[in-house]
Amino acid sequence: MIKVIIFDLDNTLYNEKEYVISGFKAVALFLAREKSLDYCTVYSSLLESFVINERGKNFNYLCNKLNIDKSIIRRLVDVYREHYPEISLKEDIEMFLLELSRKYKLCLLTNGWLLPQKMKVESLRLDRYFDTIYYSQQDGLDLAKPHPKYFMKILQFYKIEASEALMIGDDPVADIQGAKDLNIPYFQISNELDDNEKQKIMQFLHNNI
Amino acid sequence: MIKVIIFDLDNTLYNEKEYVISGFKAVALFLAREKSLDYCTVYSSLLESFVINERGKNFNYLCNKLNIDKSIIRRLVDVYREHYPEISLKEDIEMFLLELSRKYKLCLLTNGWLLPQKMKVESLRLDRYFDTIYYSQQDGLDLAKPHPKYFMKILQFYKIEASEALMIGDDPVADIQGAKDLNIPYFQISNELDDNEKQKIMQFLHNNI
Repeated sequence: MIKVIIFDLDNTLYNEKEYVISGFKAVALFLAREKSLDYCTVYSSLLESFVINERGKNFNYLCNKLNIDKSIIRRLVDVYREHYPEISLKEDIEMFLLELSRKYKLCLLTNGWLLPQKMKVESLRLDRYFDTIYYSQQDGLDLAKPHPKYFMKILQFYKIEASEALMIGDDPVADIQGAKDLNIPYFQISNELDDNEKQKIMQFLHNNI
Repeated sequence: MIKVIIFDLDNTLYNEKEYVISGFKAVALFLAREKSLDYCTVYSSLLESFVINERGKNFNYLCNKLNIDKSIIRRLVDVYREHYPEISLKEDIEMFLLELSRKYKLCLLTNGWLLPQKMKVESLRLDRYFDTIYYSQQDGLDLAKPHPKYFMKILQFYKIEASEALMIGDDPVADIQGAKDLNIPYFQISNELDDNEKQKIMQFLHNNI
């Protein structure tokens, strides 16, 4: 019988691209204030870069395009990581979590930089549904999912067997391999829980009462 | 022996997202002129929508966000499809095509709306490298790749066997299944030819002299 459902955060409960957009807005606002640059020009340049390059190169692209001294990139990364995100749960995800939280203990287990993850959790008000929240980064990158440490912590905290937990996440390595390694049942979802996936999860839970 | 190399266009010779960006700029310019909207606000809204929604919903999102009457969407689609694209081949792709075109006949076979595809070909100046250019849409959507019609046309035009052609494209159905169905050798690339893929193609050609 499943007793605890372990959720991943990014791209499982919400679309992480909303966080990227929120972060770009914060950076654009910062540069508008600090360097008197046009907010919309900065914002659209960052979006443009993300569309072409995806992650990792966006601040470099911005500096090249708008002729900004690259020494500022370190601060832009800080502004991005320290901004309070404007993100939200979709209504159907809220309903789903509400329903599950009535029958099961919900536990969040997320990788990623500590401060941004904490602010995401706060912005999404996940404490309404989640019984426990674990940040793997708390102990450094080496212990991030798929490392067994936090999975085992959760099983121990709830005094349950692996078969009594269910892992739900999108990442084939961090979430899924991590669960597999400990024989924890799992659901791999594509990106932000959809109706079909929610139904399958409910069916699985129904079959494992 | 390979005699003719058939290339796909979008996401094979260039990153199609550059075309999307180019189209969004054209739409933003159109709305700035026609509706006195702020160019950058329109442009960044379209990019934002593309980041979150990918394709198909961007003009709808724009109209909702900027409170524009949705009856204009039809015209925006036309502006997008009829704009002259600002896209270009990367230098290493140019070198690759130049080198291949000295030893092989290069043939372009592309799906997609006729006018946009023709303007992409013109903007990328593909006539410098390609011996023939086939637009499957010329005869309607039903005959688009993977339909055998244009693959067979090419074999007939060059009076070659399937084994003397090589298909290079990114789409598992249109490009790859289309080639497989006729026993044409193929290379599936991920998105815009990279160094590793170019090397493998050269090796294959070298082995099939």
